[in-house]
Amino acid sequence: MNGRVDQLRELLEEPLLVTNPTNILYLSGFKTSNGALLIEERRIRLFSDFRYAEAARAVEGVEFEETKRAVLKDLAGRLSGRIGFEADFVPYAAYETLLGGSVEPMPRSGLVEQLRAIKEPQELASIKRACEIADRVYERLAEERFVGRTERDVAWTIEQLFHDEGGESLAFETIVASGPNAARPHGRATDRVIGRGETVIVDAGCTVGGYASDYTRTFTTGPVDSAVKEAYAVVLAAQQAGFEALRAGITGVDADAAARRVVDATSFAGAFGHGLGHGLGLDVHEAPRLSTESTDRLAPGNVVTVEPGIYLEGRAGIRVEDNVVVMEQGIENYTRVRKDLITVG
Amino acid sequence: MNGRVDQLRELLEEPLLVTNPTNILYLSGFKTSNGALLIEERRIRLFSDFRYAEAARAVEGVEFEETKRAVLKDLAGRLSGRIGFEADFVPYAAYETLLGGSVEPMPRSGLVEQLRAIKEPQELASIKRACEIADRVYERLAEERFVGRTERDVAWTIEQLFHDEGGESLAFETIVASGPNAARPHGRATDRVIGRGETVIVDAGCTVGGYASDYTRTFTTGPVDSAVKEAYAVVLAAQQAGFEALRAGITGVDADAAARRVVDATSFAGAFGHGLGHGLGLDVHEAPRLSTESTDRLAPGNVVTVEPGIYLEGRAGIRVEDNVVVMEQGIENYTRVRKDLITVG
Repeated sequence: MNGRVDQLRELLEEPLLVTNPTNILYLSGFKTSNGALLIEERRIRLFSDFRYAEAARAVEGVEFEETKRAVLKDLAGRLSGRIGFEADFVPYAAYETLLGGSVEPMPRSGLVEQLRAIKEPQELASIKRACEIADRVYERLAEERFVGRTERDVAWTIEQLFHDEGGESLAFETIVASGPNAARPHGRATDRVIGRGETVIVDAGCTVGGYASDYTRTFTTGPVDSAVKEAYAVVLAAQQAGFEALRAGITGVDADAAARRVVDATSFAGAFGHGLGHGLGLDVHEAPRLSTESTDRLAPGNVVTVEPGIYLEGRAGIRVEDNVVVMEQGIENYTRVRKDLITVG
Repeated sequence: MNGRVDQLRELLEEPLLVTNPTNILYLSGFKTSNGALLIEERRIRLFSDFRYAEAARAVEGVEFEETKRAVLKDLAGRLSGRIGFEADFVPYAAYETLLGGSVEPMPRSGLVEQLRAIKEPQELASIKRACEIADRVYERLAEERFVGRTERDVAWTIEQLFHDEGGESLAFETIVASGPNAARPHGRATDRVIGRGETVIVDAGCTVGGYASDYTRTFTTGPVDSAVKEAYAVVLAAQQAGFEALRAGITGVDADAAARRVVDATSFAGAFGHGLGHGLGLDVHEAPRLSTESTDRLAPGNVVTVEPGIYLEGRAGIRVEDNVVVMEQGIENYTRVRKDLITVG
């Protein structure tokens, strides 16, 4: 823990008020939906309301102070001087609340996030374990019947499989998107009954020790037309190009471009409408980003998803997503489950 | 839908940029994690990225425009003039992004939230159905074995029961807090094995049509000391006092005080450390609040939780929570499941 705070202190120009709950958890081990951690040069102060007080008192290496439910309002009266705040997290109204006291709030961005992007060995071990569970879940899922069941019902089966295989919790709401729904990259599981000859995108993952896996596989239910098969092959080739480009030092823009180029050289140009991937850790979406809009450069210890897709409006969709660790010279792929086109019943 | 936007327009001094996903859903029926709805005098514009584009085009009554993934940055270049934004939701950094364009951003608070606080008949019907499911789940839960199982395992049983009874999804992560953990009002389900002679707080709920129920019952596992029984009776009396105080026109502070007074008149004074309740709807915590810090006044159609608790540090905890609708002259309690002290095996 303290190693993390020490690293953070090196990045600070003034004390930092950490209010993003995931960042609080990362720095102190304390889980709260309503708290703040003030990182000063020589001490760490933790603030939270009554509901979390008993747990907060047990946190080592911090000085706990109980506040009202409106934590920032309370702190505006308690703190003073120049204090950094998490500008990507703190709502504008909360900033105004801080301004109302004797605090001089300084907007800061991505400080804890840049530490979180580089995973420590035990963090990698948790993600790897979450991936191993997902491997087994997707393997077992391929044995399940899809046709005639609703997307929602298949999603529930997936949830049961994750529980059965030892997942702590789902990492996010499972997506099961079939037929025309598969053309919507962020479709969810609906009451649509899955038919024959469709593509079904399944995007799911679990957590272990708070760390997420995030997989996607696309199944077909019986014969599909040649365009779908071709698109599937292009997605696999794009993913492979992404793997080959990924290494420490590459930008998120260039990694994305390596995969996008493959899709755009085919008749499916333009149909890969989202980014190639995102960092994975305590949050399912975190730094670094692999996309046309990314401002990140990759470093050893980043864990990212690699998930190209092709979406054919109104008809079908294909996405394949693995979870990989970035190393000096390439990647280690934690995802082992097969990725050939699987036909389910 | 349009009725909601029309009501909202009456509250606006300038166009409002709605970015809270729950508010977007409420006003347009569109579910997204990354979008914006601009409410102007004569039209409604919906912005989102590629991933949601196909679904967004199907939304009636809005003009859809596809944006980059960084929606607000994109809008800063696309919009101009005085535009209200949701100051309790938009992060400070996003506000600065808006400032960087030709937009004059005006911070606004609670506009959509105050509409959402008054439930329409079909919203009440969804919440009532989510409560009926929770009633059956808690009834069945009382037949389950607790002793010798982990909190996490009991939480999984609860999740299965909710699915079995027709819940769409869990409304929030189920809390199962036993023994000393029960003294932490926001404890979660851990790997602690539940023992004999303990209190076990179970706080859980589900959604129907997106609307939540949020129940708490406290079970005992075999004989508990007389202080716990006494505390249980005080919690029930405090809840009853809350029910009797609740009606349209009362403030959230006064409703809270009515219940708190009951606890504070006993030897458990000070042990009810959180607010009496909160609004319930598309979010599990929404307006109005019933607490010492509330600024709300209740109105007919509010749906609130009524959940006093007593926490005995290191030993035990008790909380009982029902979901009620506020009416002109009192309340209708949607929660039917028994609330006497139930001993489980």
